[in-house]
Amino acid sequence: MTQHPVIRYTSEASWALVEDKFSPYAKETLSKLIQFLEDEVWPATKVAHLQLPLDQERRWNTVIPIVAELKGKAKKLGLWNLFLSKSHYPNFGVPLTNLEYAVMAELLGREGHIASEIVNCSAPDTGNMEVLARYASPEQQKQWLIPLLNGEIRSAFAMTEKGVASSDATNIQTSIRQEGNDIVINGHKWYISGAGDPRTKVHLVLGKSDPNNKNTHHQQSIVIVPADAPGVKIIRKMHVFGYDDAPEGHCEIIYDNVRVPLSNLILGWGRGFEIIQGRLGPGRIHHCMRSVGAASAALDLLIQRVTDPTRKTFGRYLFQHVGTVVTDVAKSRAEIEGARMLVLSAAMQIDKYQAKGALKEIGIAKFIVPSVALNVVDRTIQAFGAEGVSQDQELAGKWAGLRTLRIADGPDAVHMQQVGMRELRRAEGLHQRTAEQRRKESALLEKARIKAHL
Amino acid sequence: MTQHPVIRYTSEASWALVEDKFSPYAKETLSKLIQFLEDEVWPATKVAHLQLPLDQERRWNTVIPIVAELKGKAKKLGLWNLFLSKSHYPNFGVPLTNLEYAVMAELLGREGHIASEIVNCSAPDTGNMEVLARYASPEQQKQWLIPLLNGEIRSAFAMTEKGVASSDATNIQTSIRQEGNDIVINGHKWYISGAGDPRTKVHLVLGKSDPNNKNTHHQQSIVIVPADAPGVKIIRKMHVFGYDDAPEGHCEIIYDNVRVPLSNLILGWGRGFEIIQGRLGPGRIHHCMRSVGAASAALDLLIQRVTDPTRKTFGRYLFQHVGTVVTDVAKSRAEIEGARMLVLSAAMQIDKYQAKGALKEIGIAKFIVPSVALNVVDRTIQAFGAEGVSQDQELAGKWAGLRTLRIADGPDAVHMQQVGMRELRRAEGLHQRTAEQRRKESALLEKARIKAHL
Amino acid sequence: MTQHPVIRYTSEASWALVEDKFSPYAKETLSKLIQFLEDEVWPATKVAHLQLPLDQERRWNTVIPIVAELKGKAKKLGLWNLFLSKSHYPNFGVPLTNLEYAVMAELLGREGHIASEIVNCSAPDTGNMEVLARYASPEQQKQWLIPLLNGEIRSAFAMTEKGVASSDATNIQTSIRQEGNDIVINGHKWYISGAGDPRTKVHLVLGKSDPNNKNTHHQQSIVIVPADAPGVKIIRKMHVFGYDDAPEGHCEIIYDNVRVPLSNLILGWGRGFEIIQGRLGPGRIHHCMRSVGAASAALDLLIQRVTDPTRKTFGRYLFQHVGTVVTDVAKSRAEIEGARMLVLSAAMQIDKYQAKGALKEIGIAKFIVPSVALNVVDRTIQAFGAEGVSQDQELAGKWAGLRTLRIADGPDAVHMQQVGMRELRRAEGLHQRTAEQRRKESALLEKARIKAHL
Amino acid sequence: MTQHPVIRYTSEASWALVEDKFSPYAKETLSKLIQFLEDEVWPATKVAHLQLPLDQERRWNTVIPIVAELKGKAKKLGLWNLFLSKSHYPNFGVPLTNLEYAVMAELLGREGHIASEIVNCSAPDTGNMEVLARYASPEQQKQWLIPLLNGEIRSAFAMTEKGVASSDATNIQTSIRQEGNDIVINGHKWYISGAGDPRTKVHLVLGKSDPNNKNTHHQQSIVIVPADAPGVKIIRKMHVFGYDDAPEGHCEIIYDNVRVPLSNLILGWGRGFEIIQGRLGPGRIHHCMRSVGAASAALDLLIQRVTDPTRKTFGRYLFQHVGTVVTDVAKSRAEIEGARMLVLSAAMQIDKYQAKGALKEIGIAKFIVPSVALNVVDRTIQAFGAEGVSQDQELAGKWAGLRTLRIADGPDAVHMQQVGMRELRRAEGLHQRTAEQRRKESALLEKARIKAHL
Repeated sequence: MTQHPVIRYTSEASWALVEDKFSPYAKETLSKLIQFLEDEVWPATKVAHLQLPLDQERRWNTVIPIVAELKGKAKKLGLWNLFLSKSHYPNFGVPLTNLEYAVMAELLGREGHIASEIVNCSAPDTGNMEVLARYASPEQQKQWLIPLLNGEIRSAFAMTEKGVASSDATNIQTSIRQEGNDIVINGHKWYISGAGDPRTKVHLVLGKSDPNNKNTHHQQSIVIVPADAPGVKIIRKMHVFGYDDAPEGHCEIIYDNVRVPLSNLILGWGRGFEIIQGRLGPGRIHHCMRSVGAASAALDLLIQRVTDPTRKTFGRYLFQHVGTVVTDVAKSRAEIEGARMLVLSAAMQIDKYQAKGALKEIGIAKFIVPSVALNVVDRTIQAFGAEGVSQDQELAGKWAGLRTLRIADGPDAVHMQQVGMRELRRAEGLHQRTAEQRRKESALLEKARIKAHL
Repeated sequence: MTQHPVIRYTSEASWALVEDKFSPYAKETLSKLIQFLEDEVWPATKVAHLQLPLDQERRWNTVIPIVAELKGKAKKLGLWNLFLSKSHYPNFGVPLTNLEYAVMAELLGREGHIASEIVNCSAPDTGNMEVLARYASPEQQKQWLIPLLNGEIRSAFAMTEKGVASSDATNIQTSIRQEGNDIVINGHKWYISGAGDPRTKVHLVLGKSDPNNKNTHHQQSIVIVPADAPGVKIIRKMHVFGYDDAPEGHCEIIYDNVRVPLSNLILGWGRGFEIIQGRLGPGRIHHCMRSVGAASAALDLLIQRVTDPTRKTFGRYLFQHVGTVVTDVAKSRAEIEGARMLVLSAAMQIDKYQAKGALKEIGIAKFIVPSVALNVVDRTIQAFGAEGVSQDQELAGKWAGLRTLRIADGPDAVHMQQVGMRELRRAEGLHQRTAEQRRKESALLEKARIKAHL
Repeated sequence: MTQHPVIRYTSEASWALVEDKFSPYAKETLSKLIQFLEDEVWPATKVAHLQLPLDQERRWNTVIPIVAELKGKAKKLGLWNLFLSKSHYPNFGVPLTNLEYAVMAELLGREGHIASEIVNCSAPDTGNMEVLARYASPEQQKQWLIPLLNGEIRSAFAMTEKGVASSDATNIQTSIRQEGNDIVINGHKWYISGAGDPRTKVHLVLGKSDPNNKNTHHQQSIVIVPADAPGVKIIRKMHVFGYDDAPEGHCEIIYDNVRVPLSNLILGWGRGFEIIQGRLGPGRIHHCMRSVGAASAALDLLIQRVTDPTRKTFGRYLFQHVGTVVTDVAKSRAEIEGARMLVLSAAMQIDKYQAKGALKEIGIAKFIVPSVALNVVDRTIQAFGAEGVSQDQELAGKWAGLRTLRIADGPDAVHMQQVGMRELRRAEGLHQRTAEQRRKESALLEKARIKAHL
Repeated sequence: MTQHPVIRYTSEASWALVEDKFSPYAKETLSKLIQFLEDEVWPATKVAHLQLPLDQERRWNTVIPIVAELKGKAKKLGLWNLFLSKSHYPNFGVPLTNLEYAVMAELLGREGHIASEIVNCSAPDTGNMEVLARYASPEQQKQWLIPLLNGEIRSAFAMTEKGVASSDATNIQTSIRQEGNDIVINGHKWYISGAGDPRTKVHLVLGKSDPNNKNTHHQQSIVIVPADAPGVKIIRKMHVFGYDDAPEGHCEIIYDNVRVPLSNLILGWGRGFEIIQGRLGPGRIHHCMRSVGAASAALDLLIQRVTDPTRKTFGRYLFQHVGTVVTDVAKSRAEIEGARMLVLSAAMQIDKYQAKGALKEIGIAKFIVPSVALNVVDRTIQAFGAEGVSQDQELAGKWAGLRTLRIADGPDAVHMQQVGMRELRRAEGLHQRTAEQRRKESALLEKARIKAHL
């Protein structure tokens, strides 16, 4: 029996848990993806990095040639939009489940930043395509979704605001109001990922259209804003630690009296909250799965470093010399295996019940996985010494990205709170079960005591 | 669609991962087991506890009546020897895989100490039955295995020695030597679990039969010793954090010129190491799975405590009053889910490759799961305050038992070391893969630089 | 320059921080104490243990002979009541500061349970003596304090109630009411430490005398109850993990219409809360300092174990064989040093401002130190293997006692909450300071920008 | 009694431990320093940041005007070279102990990167001045030390090499050899901090002068190399988590046949190892103390953030809304207090015994303090959300710098190993002490048993 090549990058044990849930198509696509990554994408990471100019201006106006080239190849190979499950998006999706994609997403997250984009599976486009596929009108889909699905344009999702606790949507300050047949948008957003990319042609902007609505979940709307609409002002690029993450970037943007036609409203007035709720589930799992991949690749690096004959000290390999290294390797492996299964399990729940029915599993993955990945990457950094924090390894950049995941799409504390409260809903059932057990116990005690006294 | 009752005690997400790997028989057995536990076993825990006398002498001479009664019921229901997989032990086993049993073992580990015994799945009998089923002669099996399989007798496994680092088998001091047609055993063992039980009729004793053999793995042999053989002296009962764990107990035993017939040798001279290697794998997974059950039940208790209206302080539930409680609940749930999947995954590997082929997965479970369970139980203890450390809750006793698992069957450090070293074996492949990728990268760099300069 | 012998048990660095704060008398007393512990007390630990009968009845009626003998010696040597600082208790105290005693308390906590009692410094007597010295009438002092100070009797403090969250004093259920010239007490307490000792002649009982008082801090009173008063019923001994901690024990007690004269009220009606507030500060520090001692002794054991030639595996010392041992030793040392300084620092604050002015420092020590000590003891247990959890080493018992400290006298969460809220009180000052700095910054920015533009 | 202003930034409890060890001069200098920081330095941080050009070329050729100006002021105020203790460096030092400076260093580390430089106390100049003051010839001192002490030039210390495990000095590849009256240096260094600064005029270069010397500690020498010597080639600036830390920077440098006169050798041939040993002790403590300051300032920010009325969510302050915030604040405060005392204690040991006699205390501080500071800063980042990882707060940059400290000057593992091994040296004494105690115990047991049998 030959084994699927995926176990070279994940593990036989975790693959065994899900293999029989993979369709033949998914298995084949997975094999094809692995070969493509090995032969084309991973070797291109450094080239892509070097093709991005250091110069501040050109840096933000560049389409990296090798990425563009590989996107073409990927599309031809059918390695495209793998994230969009046909069963949830019958008109646009590919015949893959979230579980099947999750395994692929791990591989996409292993190295560099280009793999996800090359197969048209990179945030925030993925979430935006989901929104447009689910909620947009046919005209909106034709104009914006199709080019996104084709990888011809990119997009941004403008939610987070400066100086505002985003986890409470009622805090949103951006105003969206109707003026005749137009919608007028005024607001100040930041950390809008992807907005710096020259190919980004559209922003989905969340704002308040009905700030006084007593139902705080009906105050918000989402509007499609062309990136070149007058009044869309990208003020600066925000950093993550010292990284600017060009060419996508994380932009601070002022929407200054931006005017779009009424037809750019998505789904309807006051439906913004509903839309963002639906948007976040699968995206969180994608992030988590890429994080597992990042951690897994970091562990492979760690193993290589501590067995590197050129790094011997006092005549011994690093793993022989530093007493805690082998333990670190073991812990990392164990944590990665556990983390992966948590995400795969959440992906299966999404397949069964949509994101809404998988909130506990998504929440668990969301607060566990980035921390696990941070630990693994941190241990690898430590083994690499100065090189680990440098631009010569991806490790520090990976760490910075993973650290941000503990904040983005709801900080850890919010997800822990929600998972915890969801668990507490089981209290009533537990109290009943315990009461029932106590009744049976009492009956037995009564019976037994009599016996005991005879 | 009705859901299997097991998800009341585990989780829908983890059940979804393995459900389609369960045979109809296994699903039905699992249902039957749950009902039996709910209706008969769990309510009997307290009775069993009270039927054990406090008096030092009687305490060790008692067969707890309600346990004996429930064993009979379990046997009739076919809830018996669930741990012994037919595919590995065709002559004696039941038609359940290790994966299927693992799910059941979690339930057996939830409450009290009686459930495993009632279905004849308690250590050290399980490991001993495996040894006898695999390695013993037909005569040995007839005399000792059959009564064990029938639950008529119990047994002990005498390996650990006082003052000796047991993780290195070459340290074993007990002497086993042939004298004519007899075998003579002299040694000093301790922490021999189960030896205190009045039903324990047989010890499997590990000792050195060939201490000078250059192959240190051929120095040891295992001999069957009747518990009442002259010279078998139980000196005292060892404690675990103040607990004596009667009636089984953990005994200190001197084998003082104990003499048994040559036919009591298992498998052959010098095969002791081989036998203990085979013995440990599945047993470790059973312990792990019961630990997951203990943790899961502790979390249920935690949820009940922090929502108990009689424990309000300053007018608020404990979960509202203490800021970290909800987070503790969430973390506990997440850790339990991850731990469970690690064990299930290891059980699947055992089913595929025997224990020998699943050493990495077993090792991971072995060093992760007890720590996870300890954390969960510790949080619950903390929420229960003084009651948590008292004899009125099982929590402190559970904690003590789980703490011992970090030492027994190889301490954490040994398993981490082995998992880590096993990972390091991947180094060569990784170095090659990296070299290959660097070659492709170099080709692309060369190509791209030219382009870049045009 | 000769160094003080205390650094054999603590560290030169921590001693250097406090040495010049020690009076000559304190230094001499400390030296004397060390010699007494080395020559008499520590070697007597095992004898004391063996002099305590295992028999359930005699176990609770025994005055351990060697403890009684050593108490006499200690008193003669002036090693007596070291905890009671003359500057806080001019009529009864000894000329030692809390800081000076803290250093001694560490030594008392190193081994066994007998050292503190031998120098008449064991809980709950210490707290009770403080209460009586500060708040009792001369008659009360004559009858109860003097014999306690003389070590002739022992005492209990009855606060914790079963089924009640003790951290909220308004939950107290015990009723204390006046009937003519009597006080009548009805209540159900548990985990009343020391009440099992045959020498315990008096309980200080907290109850509600004015349950409807709007000021919830004036509802409680404390009454002196002779241990042999009719209606004082010790129901059972509570366990801590599997330990009963005889002969003192932790008792469940019913006060059933117990009647004492009105003169047994301490300080006045409704002053109970005030009294318990004053009682807890120094006692917490004593516990912490003994915990540092327990951890320090455990580290010494760890070092001995991993360098024990009889415990070699595969030809190497444990510290050479297990990669994480040396790191564990280093971390333990570092954590102990940090913990000790936190407690010493809190003791100094008590000396300066009384307990009331040192609540933050006491709180920090209270939630940090037991956890540190648990970690150290746990690592040592792990290195000792089965012996570590057994009755042959003190480690498991120590661990159980330390674990209880995370619950007793306010659980960790309460202390963390209080320390955190106390820190948050600094917010206003910090906001002002920041505003001030921003103003200066703005002025500089204005000035600099102009320059920059020139 | 008025309290010293330092407790506004540290804590009353930690100040109480050391106050009486401060000279009047030190107290006054400390007050002056605080006022200078509050009035001039901290408000200038942002100006300094803005005065550093973003342009890649100018960025590395700029002397920040406001820093230059403030250096002048500091020198006039006598806030200058505070790190150089007169008792260790009688010819050049200031009348401050290491303990006294440590308290000041905490304040210097609180905010920005400019404070240390402004008082001429920034690395690597401090270590270089120590080397030159202790080991250089009068001529070398005149030429290089005096301008450094005057703050007229800056310097670099070239030890770390690319591709080499620096913690083993025998790995050093740089060659230093004599040619006639010249010394010729060839080597490839990286992460040479400070070398990017236009004011840096001198490098101290470590290399191998006698690679075959059997005593591996006599193979190395250190040579003074003018920064503008022919053959000194700064190849590029290394990054730390995306930061270039201009204008100092961390440079990759090739020394390509660099030729200096023989008189540039420091101390003598083969004395390099000895010099670096002496260099590192106090510098590590300075780093640690600045780290405590960074953590302390981060905690102040955390407190401000969670009490910021503009960041309320769902109507409540962040500290009320997120259950773990108050606990995080409490833990941070506790950890900072413990960390500070560990460093102060190590500084005292340096004062008493020089760095060589304080290696254990330095080692403990070195591996504990950066981790503590990282935890505190990380919690603050989390509370700040996206802003926390951005360029608008110092937090991410601080984190990156602190993370590097776990690698620089010996990685954590090395220090833990050394502290652990140093502890293990106590084993023999402990074994003896235990044996002695056992003897006394045996005597008592014998005596007691006889009694017991009567």
